[in-house]
Amino acid sequence: MTVPAPGLPARVRIHEVGPRDGLQNEQGVVPTEVKAEFIRRLAGAGLDTVEATSFVHPKWVPQLADAERLFPLVSDLDVRLPVLVPNERGLDRALALGAREVAVFASATESFAKANLNRTVDESLAMFEPVVARAKAEGLGVRGYLSMCFGDPWEGPVPVAQVVGVVRRLADLGCDELSLGDTIGVATPGHVEALLGALGEAGVPASRLAVHFHDTYGQALANTFAALRHGVTTVDASAGGLGGCPYAKSATGNLATEDLVWMLQGLGIETGVDLGRLTATSAWLAEELGRPSPSRTVRALSHKE
Amino acid sequence: MTVPAPGLPARVRIHEVGPRDGLQNEQGVVPTEVKAEFIRRLAGAGLDTVEATSFVHPKWVPQLADAERLFPLVSDLDVRLPVLVPNERGLDRALALGAREVAVFASATESFAKANLNRTVDESLAMFEPVVARAKAEGLGVRGYLSMCFGDPWEGPVPVAQVVGVVRRLADLGCDELSLGDTIGVATPGHVEALLGALGEAGVPASRLAVHFHDTYGQALANTFAALRHGVTTVDASAGGLGGCPYAKSATGNLATEDLVWMLQGLGIETGVDLGRLTATSAWLAEELGRPSPSRTVRALSHKE
Repeated sequence: MTVPAPGLPARVRIHEVGPRDGLQNEQGVVPTEVKAEFIRRLAGAGLDTVEATSFVHPKWVPQLADAERLFPLVSDLDVRLPVLVPNERGLDRALALGAREVAVFASATESFAKANLNRTVDESLAMFEPVVARAKAEGLGVRGYLSMCFGDPWEGPVPVAQVVGVVRRLADLGCDELSLGDTIGVATPGHVEALLGALGEAGVPASRLAVHFHDTYGQALANTFAALRHGVTTVDASAGGLGGCPYAKSATGNLATEDLVWMLQGLGIETGVDLGRLTATSAWLAEELGRPSPSRTVRALSHKE
Repeated sequence: MTVPAPGLPARVRIHEVGPRDGLQNEQGVVPTEVKAEFIRRLAGAGLDTVEATSFVHPKWVPQLADAERLFPLVSDLDVRLPVLVPNERGLDRALALGAREVAVFASATESFAKANLNRTVDESLAMFEPVVARAKAEGLGVRGYLSMCFGDPWEGPVPVAQVVGVVRRLADLGCDELSLGDTIGVATPGHVEALLGALGEAGVPASRLAVHFHDTYGQALANTFAALRHGVTTVDASAGGLGGCPYAKSATGNLATEDLVWMLQGLGIETGVDLGRLTATSAWLAEELGRPSPSRTVRALSHKE
C-alpha cells in the first residue's frame, strides 16, 4: 500500500553499487560476462545509475581486474555508469574507455586512509586533486566517496566536525556529489541527522549529498529514512544486499536495493525501478554466486514465487 | 556513539516476545527447561517484560503445550511475565498459575480472524469481552494484540479506518495496552504514521499503544523509528529475531530485539537492556535450536567475539 509521509522528496535517485562495491567484496572472482549481464539486467530493471567497476590497480582488487574488458560490454547502455578511479593512472584508463563519470574515494579517518590507501588523509586528497581537476576539465561528472563517516574499526566513533572538514575539502576539490559512507554499519538515525545538519551549516546542502549505509547492525533503512527527512535525494544501495566491508566482520554489507525500493514504493516516492525485475535479477545472481541473497525483500518475494 | 535526536522519548519499554511469539513459530518443540533458561537469561539481560507463553489449546499450538509446566519455573522472576489467553478457559489456567498480566489477540481483518480464530471479528471480540472483564476484575493487566494492521495475505492492504475501528473496540473492552501488529511485515513508515495519527484523532493516544513489526521486507526498524517520532514508547521485539508468521512465507519474522537495542542505544534512549548479555543469550539459543540467528546485530557481534 502506498501511503506518503510529509517532508519527504517526491523522487529519489538510487545509485546502484552492486557491480562495483558488491562484487569487489565477494570472495571469488565473477566472470566478466556475468558482470556485464548483471549490469544489463539492473539497467533493464530501471536503475538509472549503475556503478560499473573500478580502475584501481588489479593487485589491490583482483575481483575487478577485468575493468578494461567489462566496460566496453556495457557502455552502450542508456544509463549513467560511474567508475572508481584512485589516481591519474586510473583516470587515464577510464577516459580511454569513454567513461563519463568517475568517483574518488577518501576516508574521514587517518586509520582507514592508511589501511585502504596507504596514505594520510592529506596525502590522499593531494592525490585526488589532479584527478578531479582533469576529470572536470574533460567534462566528466565526479563523485567523492567518504568512508568511515560515523565509526571506524580502529578509532571508534568519528567526530562530526572531523567528517565535515573532509567533506568540505572534497567539495572544494570540485566533486559534484559527496557520498557519506557508514562503512562498518554502526550509525543510528540521530547521528545521521547530526551530520547532515552540521554539513548544511557548513555550506554543503543535502542536494549535493548521497548516503551510503551498510546493514551490518540492521540500521541502514532507518538511517536512510532519517536522511530522506533531511532532504537527501540520492541513496546508494546494492542489489540483493551484495557485498560487505572487509573491515567489518559480518555476513551482511550494503543496504539491499530491494529493501530500499520496498520502502520508497510504500512511501510513494518515485525511483523508476521495477521491483519484480530487480528481485529476479538478484535471485539470478545469487544462483550464479552460489549463495542466497541477504536481502529480506529478495528472500520474501522469492519464496512467494 | 550516542547521538540523541529531537522529538524522541527518553525511555522505551521493550516488550520481549521471543519465548512466546518466537518459539511458537519454530518448527520443532523446544524443551521446557531450555525455554525457562531462555526467559531467565532475558530477564538477566535487563528485559523487564518477557511474554512467557500462551494458554491456547495445545492442539492449536503444540510448541507451547507446556505452559503449565513452564510458568512456575519462571514466575519467581522480578519481571513482568504476560501470557496469551484466547478465551475464559485459557484465563482460568493463567489465573490458577498466578499470572499477573494476560493478552488477548484479535484481527483487524475478517480473513485472518477466520484463519486464526475460526470466528468473525465480531465473534472474536464477543469471546474476549468476558475474558477482559474478568481479568480486570482480578486486577490483572490486559494487553490487546491486533494482527494484520497494515496488510493481510488474503485481503491485501488494510484500510486505516478499519484498523482504527477494531482498536477502538478493543480499547473499549478495557485493554490497557493495544499492540498494533504488522503480521506479514509489509508496512512502510508513512503507513505507520498515518495509522498512529488516525488513532490519536480517534482518542487512542500513543501512550496506550505498542508497535509490533515484522522484518519480512526489512522495514521493521524504519517503521519503529517513525513510531517513536509519533510518541510510541512500547516496542515489541523478539530476541535474535526468533519466529516468523506462518502466513508470511519468508525466512525472517519479528524485529530482532538486538537490532532495536542497537538503534535505541545509539539514540541515547534508555531501555535497561545489556546488549552484550542479550546477544550472548540469542547466540546460546541459536545453538540450542541448531540454526543461526537472523538478527544482523547478533551476527555482527558474534563474529567479533
